[in-house]
Amino acid sequence: MKPQIAQLGYVALESSDIEKSIAFFQKIIGLELTEKVGEQYYFRAWGDFQHHTLSISPGPKGRVKHISFRTKRSEDVDLFAKQLRGKGYEIDIAEAGTTPGIGRAIRFSAASGHRIELYYDVLKTEVEEHRRSVLKNQTYKSWANGISPRRLDHINIHTSAPGNTAYDFFIEELGFRMNECIETTDGQLLAGWMSVTPLVHDVALVAHESLETTARFHHISYWLDSSGDLLRAADILKESGLEFIGPGKHSISQAIYLYVIDPGSGCRVELFTGGYLIFEPDWETIVWRPEERALGNTYWGDSITGNSLIIPTIEA
Amino acid sequence: MKPQIAQLGYVALESSDIEKSIAFFQKIIGLELTEKVGEQYYFRAWGDFQHHTLSISPGPKGRVKHISFRTKRSEDVDLFAKQLRGKGYEIDIAEAGTTPGIGRAIRFSAASGHRIELYYDVLKTEVEEHRRSVLKNQTYKSWANGISPRRLDHINIHTSAPGNTAYDFFIEELGFRMNECIETTDGQLLAGWMSVTPLVHDVALVAHESLETTARFHHISYWLDSSGDLLRAADILKESGLEFIGPGKHSISQAIYLYVIDPGSGCRVELFTGGYLIFEPDWETIVWRPEERALGNTYWGDSITGNSLIIPTIEA
Amino acid sequence: MKPQIAQLGYVALESSDIEKSIAFFQKIIGLELTEKVGEQYYFRAWGDFQHHTLSISPGPKGRVKHISFRTKRSEDVDLFAKQLRGKGYEIDIAEAGTTPGIGRAIRFSAASGHRIELYYDVLKTEVEEHRRSVLKNQTYKSWANGISPRRLDHINIHTSAPGNTAYDFFIEELGFRMNECIETTDGQLLAGWMSVTPLVHDVALVAHESLETTARFHHISYWLDSSGDLLRAADILKESGLEFIGPGKHSISQAIYLYVIDPGSGCRVELFTGGYLIFEPDWETIVWRPEERALGNTYWGDSITGNSLIIPTIEA
Amino acid sequence: MKPQIAQLGYVALESSDIEKSIAFFQKIIGLELTEKVGEQYYFRAWGDFQHHTLSISPGPKGRVKHISFRTKRSEDVDLFAKQLRGKGYEIDIAEAGTTPGIGRAIRFSAASGHRIELYYDVLKTEVEEHRRSVLKNQTYKSWANGISPRRLDHINIHTSAPGNTAYDFFIEELGFRMNECIETTDGQLLAGWMSVTPLVHDVALVAHESLETTARFHHISYWLDSSGDLLRAADILKESGLEFIGPGKHSISQAIYLYVIDPGSGCRVELFTGGYLIFEPDWETIVWRPEERALGNTYWGDSITGNSLIIPTIEA
Repeated sequence: MKPQIAQLGYVALESSDIEKSIAFFQKIIGLELTEKVGEQYYFRAWGDFQHHTLSISPGPKGRVKHISFRTKRSEDVDLFAKQLRGKGYEIDIAEAGTTPGIGRAIRFSAASGHRIELYYDVLKTEVEEHRRSVLKNQTYKSWANGISPRRLDHINIHTSAPGNTAYDFFIEELGFRMNECIETTDGQLLAGWMSVTPLVHDVALVAHESLETTARFHHISYWLDSSGDLLRAADILKESGLEFIGPGKHSISQAIYLYVIDPGSGCRVELFTGGYLIFEPDWETIVWRPEERALGNTYWGDSITGNSLIIPTIEA
Repeated sequence: MKPQIAQLGYVALESSDIEKSIAFFQKIIGLELTEKVGEQYYFRAWGDFQHHTLSISPGPKGRVKHISFRTKRSEDVDLFAKQLRGKGYEIDIAEAGTTPGIGRAIRFSAASGHRIELYYDVLKTEVEEHRRSVLKNQTYKSWANGISPRRLDHINIHTSAPGNTAYDFFIEELGFRMNECIETTDGQLLAGWMSVTPLVHDVALVAHESLETTARFHHISYWLDSSGDLLRAADILKESGLEFIGPGKHSISQAIYLYVIDPGSGCRVELFTGGYLIFEPDWETIVWRPEERALGNTYWGDSITGNSLIIPTIEA
Repeated sequence: MKPQIAQLGYVALESSDIEKSIAFFQKIIGLELTEKVGEQYYFRAWGDFQHHTLSISPGPKGRVKHISFRTKRSEDVDLFAKQLRGKGYEIDIAEAGTTPGIGRAIRFSAASGHRIELYYDVLKTEVEEHRRSVLKNQTYKSWANGISPRRLDHINIHTSAPGNTAYDFFIEELGFRMNECIETTDGQLLAGWMSVTPLVHDVALVAHESLETTARFHHISYWLDSSGDLLRAADILKESGLEFIGPGKHSISQAIYLYVIDPGSGCRVELFTGGYLIFEPDWETIVWRPEERALGNTYWGDSITGNSLIIPTIEA
Repeated sequence: MKPQIAQLGYVALESSDIEKSIAFFQKIIGLELTEKVGEQYYFRAWGDFQHHTLSISPGPKGRVKHISFRTKRSEDVDLFAKQLRGKGYEIDIAEAGTTPGIGRAIRFSAASGHRIELYYDVLKTEVEEHRRSVLKNQTYKSWANGISPRRLDHINIHTSAPGNTAYDFFIEELGFRMNECIETTDGQLLAGWMSVTPLVHDVALVAHESLETTARFHHISYWLDSSGDLLRAADILKESGLEFIGPGKHSISQAIYLYVIDPGSGCRVELFTGGYLIFEPDWETIVWRPEERALGNTYWGDSITGNSLIIPTIEA
């Protein structure tokens, strides 16, 4: 049986201004701090179940060190290692605890140039009594601070890798399904929304030749339960003095969004709600042509247009 | 005791494509048809209490014939007539029934060039059993069709009248309070939000020299109860194939909005929710300077910018 | 010209557990602390314009000391004093500053037994830079803490005063309009929703013979902008370990509600959104008969039934 | 490789008053009619992708004929047949087209007594131009009529089958995961929330000895995108003269709900939003004890209590 990925795990972010980043993610976005080890901070949303879905550590500039996925089964970590080595990929091992809360992991560079980590074991982490939800199925009390999203949703990454190689890697090596894409009539993918779950995307990938570096990170997305919560988020961002894009609704994924940039790391965060789920076992990729890209990006509202879709990203 | 205006009454619209206008206001906006007399249609929202808040009749082009306000007391209609005649305004009388449902009224041209009607008596109009709300304080069942706003909120009109004369007329002759305005440091008003009620505006007025005609009509605004209803309205407009602006939030009035144009008459409709009420008896006008106009117009979201704020309007 | 009341001003609350009350109103309800003088706390919502809309001071038990309204004009304070003295009411004077932020006021006992204060002058109070909204028309940043309602809405009070005397006092002496009521067919009012503003009620009054004391206080109500905010409030209350009633929707007023009790004072707070406004100058009281009371109270949802409507209240 | 179920497919309902049922599901709930074959009606929500998610045909009384699931792969239909026959279950074959839009299927009685159908092939069905969404990834225009939910969510069924046999069948034979349950300390399940997807439940199962018949059907649940949509649904139900339970929020699943009964068939419909998704590959069942059942059922709001949870159901 082929190894499989179960879910997006976490993003390992470096920030050149750790104080600003912590203030942004903790007070404004309203993530919960799970653990702090020296200057490394581990965050998750109140409804996330894993030890963390975002780590932040100091660095010379804002960048994403790696993107981490969780496998379906314990043995899948090694099975992936074997499979990828067989294809010529160089695999590093990160022993359990290399990242707090995360078990034995493998790391490698995807065809897109992004550094990927795969793990299975993860701490769920105990929650202090005063922060714990009264619900047995919810980690923290909701609405404790700031925007207060429910959970990690997806990532959006960019690459200058040529052709469809970057997309193919996710599909063929990691088992993602291409749910929606923007594709030229001669088969060149311009953007792809891919998942291993019923979400329309766990990973969105955009290939763009003109990137400064091969692999870039466009945004990490956290989920809110309701559109009213997203409009409240807009108020909070505005009162925080931060510029943002949105609210708007994507046609692709049908989700309602805001985009704002962490002033510490330069990392973009998407706040996200609505959208549809794909339970169909025979889902056929929804193909948008380049001339439909504007509609695909924006069903209505304040939009991410042309350049702003690409720039700024941070190195990944 | 000086005569007073109680509330905005209705807008008398002419449309050059009456079928399109009726389809738009009845099926998409979701107003209730109160009465149809020949080719004249009388609409109100499900929570409006008067006979109609919008009338539509056929005409050679889209235009607003008059804007109608209701006085506080029956005697105020004649008191206003006397007061305005004393200032040299020409007053016409529209006997009861000239407009279905509306009692004896006076009509005159405001300093802004807009044709204004004042009346007191109005039919409340019986509602057919199957359309009547189960609530004793609500006219129709809500959510019967389309966007389904609760009630008329305000109008926005433009004029090329010079200086502050147009604003002064509303304040001095009709008793409006200037709640917010955009004003140059030497006292020239560029826009004013005025009311006789605790709403931030029953009337917004913009003076702009470059208008084709003296008096123009920018939009009629209908109120929705909740921001989620406004996002639903955006879906409905998009699926109807209509272009629109928003969602966004004004700083001035703090309301969340969409703008869409009736394809029959060219009349712009604002869908509107949120905002604040002014109960303070000593309210001091909030003054925005020209350089704050962008913030005043848009707190966040898809915005009405520069030209689109002015054009297109229809003649009034 | 008869003196008039412009708006509900504030409620002066005493609490037997001031720490609990402050934690409740500041952290959970999310009111803004304007001023603290010794052990007296002055709160308002982020969108309130006056110095405070709720004061809390320590006392031997939870009770409302007085309910304060603001007059339309400065001279109305003395005009009301004169008018009420003429009817035999005993009027006390509270010189400016007796209550921080509040100018010269008169105090008297209404026919319902409630202690009423009337004032005109009030401090607007400067806001510290970091708490001030980026909006020129909004006092504080919204969403700073807890439920974070926009503004004071209304009060609900109970009396054992016989017949309709308590209602008549508000209507005849203070100029309120009866917008909706529950009334027997022989004209005995069981409950009345009255206002001096377009709100359906600034004051709801319930006469009930069996009260322990003549004058009781049922709830103070704060307004939220959107129904989604009210459901978020339910989450916050639940996670705070507080019992509450709702969400539900009243037929009378058409508003959506939650009810929760301040654990310090025993004072009930209503969180409130939706509803309708009355701009009609000839509004006819909506009369609900006793057999319609259940529908009048509850259009849908978790309801305030029979006894819980009355009990517990606190002394006023 | 074991056969697997991909998703809940549809519910086959019989109604003793087909006109009432059609009016209810089409005009009030706002499902889309896909096809009508004689007196058999096929409905789906605007965001459902399959031919139908609810069929309604006339019958002597309201009952559910079968509940249908879709397999992950084409070959899984026969693999399930083989596996179940091996355990002694009697398998019937429904050739392609037995149900319009549905391919070759197998049918059998689950340990709970419910009639289950499994199929893989399904028509997606073309949509008429005027009903088709402008979105390439959405079937119909949303908000065309009534409450207008997005998609089928789950079913809730009851059985009088003893012990845990009914639960075990879903888990062991059909591959469901038990996500949350109410269980006595000696291991007797009282209720279980099970899924083959990241939804907390595709199927909720309640074992209750006192049922009139072995297998009962409690409700079919349709999903709405936002809590505001659910409150709008409450208004629509109230104005339709239908009684309903809610709004409330379950602790189990964390979803917000309304319950209403189809006046034609007696079948209960849940309108549903919010909740959480389970992507964790090592999810541990959340166990609620009988004394926690009230909290498990109701986080807040108008609740399903004691008897009403069980009664009325319809035969299945």
